[in-house]
Amino acid sequence: MICKDMNSFIVMDIVREAVKYDDTIHFEIGQPDIPPSPRVKEAIKEAVDKNLFAYTESFGLKSLRELIAKEYKKNYAVSVEPERIILTPGTSGAFMIAYSIALKRGERLALSDPSYPCYKNFAHLLGVRPLFFPIGKENSYQLRVEDLKKESFSALQISSPANPTGNIYERENLKEIVEFCDKVGVSFISDELYHGLTYDKKADTALEFGENIFVINGFSKYYCMPGIRLGWIIVPKKHIRSAEIIAQNLFISAPTLGQYGALEAFDESYLFFVRDEFKKRRDFLYKELSDIFEIDAKPDGAFYLWADVSKYSNNSFKFSKELLKKIHVAVTPGVDFGSNKTDRYLRFAYTRDIAHLNEGVKRLKKLLLS
Amino acid sequence: MICKDMNSFIVMDIVREAVKYDDTIHFEIGQPDIPPSPRVKEAIKEAVDKNLFAYTESFGLKSLRELIAKEYKKNYAVSVEPERIILTPGTSGAFMIAYSIALKRGERLALSDPSYPCYKNFAHLLGVRPLFFPIGKENSYQLRVEDLKKESFSALQISSPANPTGNIYERENLKEIVEFCDKVGVSFISDELYHGLTYDKKADTALEFGENIFVINGFSKYYCMPGIRLGWIIVPKKHIRSAEIIAQNLFISAPTLGQYGALEAFDESYLFFVRDEFKKRRDFLYKELSDIFEIDAKPDGAFYLWADVSKYSNNSFKFSKELLKKIHVAVTPGVDFGSNKTDRYLRFAYTRDIAHLNEGVKRLKKLLLS
Repeated sequence: MICKDMNSFIVMDIVREAVKYDDTIHFEIGQPDIPPSPRVKEAIKEAVDKNLFAYTESFGLKSLRELIAKEYKKNYAVSVEPERIILTPGTSGAFMIAYSIALKRGERLALSDPSYPCYKNFAHLLGVRPLFFPIGKENSYQLRVEDLKKESFSALQISSPANPTGNIYERENLKEIVEFCDKVGVSFISDELYHGLTYDKKADTALEFGENIFVINGFSKYYCMPGIRLGWIIVPKKHIRSAEIIAQNLFISAPTLGQYGALEAFDESYLFFVRDEFKKRRDFLYKELSDIFEIDAKPDGAFYLWADVSKYSNNSFKFSKELLKKIHVAVTPGVDFGSNKTDRYLRFAYTRDIAHLNEGVKRLKKLLLS
Repeated sequence: MICKDMNSFIVMDIVREAVKYDDTIHFEIGQPDIPPSPRVKEAIKEAVDKNLFAYTESFGLKSLRELIAKEYKKNYAVSVEPERIILTPGTSGAFMIAYSIALKRGERLALSDPSYPCYKNFAHLLGVRPLFFPIGKENSYQLRVEDLKKESFSALQISSPANPTGNIYERENLKEIVEFCDKVGVSFISDELYHGLTYDKKADTALEFGENIFVINGFSKYYCMPGIRLGWIIVPKKHIRSAEIIAQNLFISAPTLGQYGALEAFDESYLFFVRDEFKKRRDFLYKELSDIFEIDAKPDGAFYLWADVSKYSNNSFKFSKELLKKIHVAVTPGVDFGSNKTDRYLRFAYTRDIAHLNEGVKRLKKLLLS
């Protein structure tokens, strides 16, 4: 089986168990609970009325690609030709494009540990070997050029804000990494899916520091449209043709109704409301969980909090099962995200309202602190 | 590049050129021009109103999987456990699941020549080697066990009704192939995407002849929802877990709004209207094009007609470019579908109304017969 080295998400065991209780508190869910902008909803319904059920071009609607290019100009003062932007079915399709172009079979893809578990599984599917670099408190959960220099690999993938830590790469460090990759001929892939969901400082796009890179983003998080399955990738100019061939064959085109909806997704006042809501939750949960667990770094973005639970357990999977069984609190065990000390960590998602989070905190405090 | 052996669709050159003229007649487009059932449209709009924007389970909505199982019972008298059915982003996601489970890297996947060009490109992406068996007039455009026996391979993929020929496998032959594969330990993959669009005889599902096979279908053709990007795959019971791992990692879940729409897609009276419409067009175009070209076999299903144009040209790509330039008639050159005599063939899609088809026929007759 080509898929033999791919792993399941361990959290799925938790998810399956969590739905058995009526009063489960959900810290395990990695998608927003807020709907998209009302303008997006209207646009989708209009597209239905207009019978827009055909495939779009493989690259996606030209108007949407132009709109995305404008956003890069507005938000980061970066010029991106719409020709370099390809709409994909979720960011999943974007990773297939990036890895298929950036790597040869058998080559090594550098990833941080912990990181989003699908990265390594995409690599396994394509016959690429993941190479893990540990990140933690000691390096502010960021890869550094001095570490990267110690190994050889063909592509590097980072995410900022990161899943599972919510960490944002420092501007200077990101710049150094992009420039290092360019210099040594390593393909650089930047997952920027949580951009916009940033609370104390802005995240920089890697596009500010180089053109010969792959940047991935999408409408599932900040734009609150996960089930729409719509992402995008920006590819280096020289790879546009390869990206088109992969898109044509691998998914024909991204979902059409979602693309029409996304034309209305850059609704600034709504997006600021979304950001404010997640910021409030972040502030609340960070403060409360700090009373219970060690938190190495206040999360800067995304909607995750990476908590060191080692004063209670050194087996985070077992611990998360206990929390679910005893107090009906569902949390993702760190082991889903790698093997670097991950048995000491839990990932808390703040994708429910504060009342819900508060009930979870109360149960945790009662169990662990009293 | 992992994608190095993947090819573009040659027809895209035609498509790009075709949009330059206001009066182009479109025989090149492989998707229905008819919208889905009004019930589907209502269901999507209701799902938008209900804010159903979250991911579904990776396997897709349980209710939809149960409904699909019921359709197999009703249409083919075959029992399929809903647990074996996985909703995918188009059939594209389904092929990734089937090939990733059925094959090891470097193994051979048997395909017919001509066949749908994405099959071989999925194989290239995954490092699987396509092995082509010629089909043509001499074997009624169907693979036969006697031919398959001459080579060794690990998986076999067929489609019925087929793209580009519209051919349906004879029941007895399909049964023999499925049983042969089972006996020699070859994985059998059946692309049944054009089921329902059958005009003189019904297509049989391979599930009637074995359980240890992969069956792929979707909502893009008969159900008229191509841009929704929703397919399904039925996997052997022993591979359910592997399929789940691939689905989780590769696409998280199929598009949610489309899944809610699809709950209303089995709208029999509407589907019969769709079938009747395509049958009328098939009857019209088959009769008319028979005056101009050699047609080896009357198409039984799908919405394609495979015409031997060798009395006018032995370079179908050049010929299709000429037709476009001279009379603004866009047709897909046979070479997109393989190399077995494909330079002698054009594929005509009847995905526009009869008035449109008629105008194309008139222009062709004027150019070629007068």
